Amino acid sequence: MEEMTLNRELLKKDAPIGVFDSGVGGLTVMREIMRQIPNEKIIYFGDTARVPYGGKSQDTVTRYSEQIVRFLKTFQIKTIVVACNTASAYALDILEKASDVPIIGVVRPGAKVAAEVTGNGRIGVIATEATISSGIYTKYIQELNQNVTIYGKACPLFVPLVEEGLLEDPVTDEIARRYLTELIDIDIDTLILGCTHYPLIRSTLGKIMGKNVTLVNPAYETARELKEMLTELDLLQEKPPVLGSNQYQFYVSDKAEKFVHFANSIIKYGILSAKSINIEEY
Amino acid sequence: MEEMTLNRELLKKDAPIGVFDSGVGGLTVMREIMRQIPNEKIIYFGDTARVPYGGKSQDTVTRYSEQIVRFLKTFQIKTIVVACNTASAYALDILEKASDVPIIGVVRPGAKVAAEVTGNGRIGVIATEATISSGIYTKYIQELNQNVTIYGKACPLFVPLVEEGLLEDPVTDEIARRYLTELIDIDIDTLILGCTHYPLIRSTLGKIMGKNVTLVNPAYETARELKEMLTELDLLQEKPPVLGSNQYQFYVSDKAEKFVHFANSIIKYGILSAKSINIEEY
Repeated sequence: MEEMTLNRELLKKDAPIGVFDSGVGGLTVMREIMRQIPNEKIIYFGDTARVPYGGKSQDTVTRYSEQIVRFLKTFQIKTIVVACNTASAYALDILEKASDVPIIGVVRPGAKVAAEVTGNGRIGVIATEATISSGIYTKYIQELNQNVTIYGKACPLFVPLVEEGLLEDPVTDEIARRYLTELIDIDIDTLILGCTHYPLIRSTLGKIMGKNVTLVNPAYETARELKEMLTELDLLQEKPPVLGSNQYQFYVSDKAEKFVHFANSIIKYGILSAKSINIEEY
Repeated sequence: MEEMTLNRELLKKDAPIGVFDSGVGGLTVMREIMRQIPNEKIIYFGDTARVPYGGKSQDTVTRYSEQIVRFLKTFQIKTIVVACNTASAYALDILEKASDVPIIGVVRPGAKVAAEVTGNGRIGVIATEATISSGIYTKYIQELNQNVTIYGKACPLFVPLVEEGLLEDPVTDEIARRYLTELIDIDIDTLILGCTHYPLIRSTLGKIMGKNVTLVNPAYETARELKEMLTELDLLQEKPPVLGSNQYQFYVSDKAEKFVHFANSIIKYGILSAKSINIEEY
C-alpha cells in the first residue's frame, strides 16, 4: 500500500467494497468477507465472458483487470479486493500504482500466513499456470522468511473439474494425486490453495496431503487482512445496512443465469439476480 | 448461402481464406483444409484471450465472432470458415446476413453427412454446452432427414483434458465413458464430434463407442464443402503460391508463444510465429 496515493476525502465508510474475479471462484473470497465483516456492502464483478484467466498472459490479464477496476469505480467504492490469484499475481502492482482507492489481492495474505506457519520451511503452492509462472508466491514469502523453499505446481484441470461439479469424485482424486505426488515426495508441511476454486475441493486435497500438512486458504486470510485495513483507515462499517438497501450486488460480463446458479451453490445467501454488462466498454 | 449478397467483384482467386476459432481447436479444421486444397493461402485467427466459447452465451459469442470477422476482412479474404462449433451454432446466421463474403461453418457439413450415413436413424452429437443447448445440429439434420432422432450430450471436460495433453489416458477414458454411456444405451449408430478439439481424442471415443458406430468429423466435411464452394464460385486456387509468399499466417488475441507450441503439435507444418493483436479494437 505504500505506493498508492489515497484520496482519503473520497473514501466513505458507508461506501461499498468492490470485489472481482475472472468468474465465480472469487465468490469463495466474498463468502469469507461476508462472514467476517457482515455489515459491509459489496459489489461483485465476475468476468464470465472472458473466464478463465489462469492460462492467459500478463498483458491480457492486466488489461482485463484495469477495465474491471474502471467499472467498479463507477460505484464510488471505498476499497477493491482482487479476489483472483491470477489477477493478483499479474496485475496487482500495476493496479495499485494507478489507484486512489486501497486495493488488496489474495496472494500476499496467503503468503504471509504460510511463511508464519511452516515448521520445516518447505511450502507448496498449487495454482493456475499463470500464477505459478509469475513466481509471485515465492517472491512474497521470501520477503518475509528467507529460510523457506517454495515449490509451485500448476493444476490446470482443477478449475474445470470444480465447475463440472466433481467435488468428491474418483476422477478428481486421481488428478489431484498426480498433481500432488511431487509435493508429497518433497515433504512440504504447508500447502497454499493458490486459486479461488480450490477451497471447494479442500477435503480431497486434505485427504491426499495427510493431516501433517497445513492447508492455507488465502480467501480466509484476505478477509482478515481486509478487516484490519478498513479498521486502520477508519472505514469499517459498524452498523448493518438499512433494510432494503441491496447489500450485495452482482455483475457479470456474460449472461447472468448460469452465474446465479453457481453462485448460490457457493454463497448461501439467496442471490436473486446478477446484471450483465459489456466490460469491453470500460 | 441464399441470404448473402456476395460482392463478386471484390472476391479474388488469389486472396486468402480466413479461418477462425475460439483458440487452438480450429486448427484441426485448418489441417483438413491444408490437406484437401493445398494451394490456398490461409489467415488463421484464434481468440486465445477469451477462449473458451463453449460455456458462454449467444450474445457474447456473437459479439466476439463479429469482431473477428471485422479483423479478418482487413486482409481482403475471399471466404471465411467459422472453424468453431460454438460460434457456428450461435453466430453463423447473423454473420451470414451481414457479410458480402461467403461464410461457412462447421455444423452444417457434419450434420449433412450424419443425416446421410445413419442406418437406424439414431444420431448422437457430443459438443460444448453452448452448441448442444443451441439445438443447431438437430435443426440442420432434421431439415435433411425427418426420420432421425438426435441425441445431444454436452462434454465440458473434453476440451481441458485435450489441452492438458491427456489424449490417451485412463482419466480421459473414464470421463468419456460417463459422457457416452447414455448414447450407447440409446443405440446410436452415428456420432458427430461436434467440437473441434474432439478429433484429437478420436481413438478413445471410437474404442468406447465400438466399431458399429460411425464417427463423423465435421472438420473433414467442412474442408470438402469449402472446396466445392470455391470451385462453384471459380475461386479455387489451382497453382501453388509463389515461394516466400507466407502461405499460412496465424493471429491470436493473447500472447503468441503458447499458441505456437500447441499449434505445432496439431499441424505438422513448422509454424514459426503468430502475431498477437487486440481483438477488442475491432
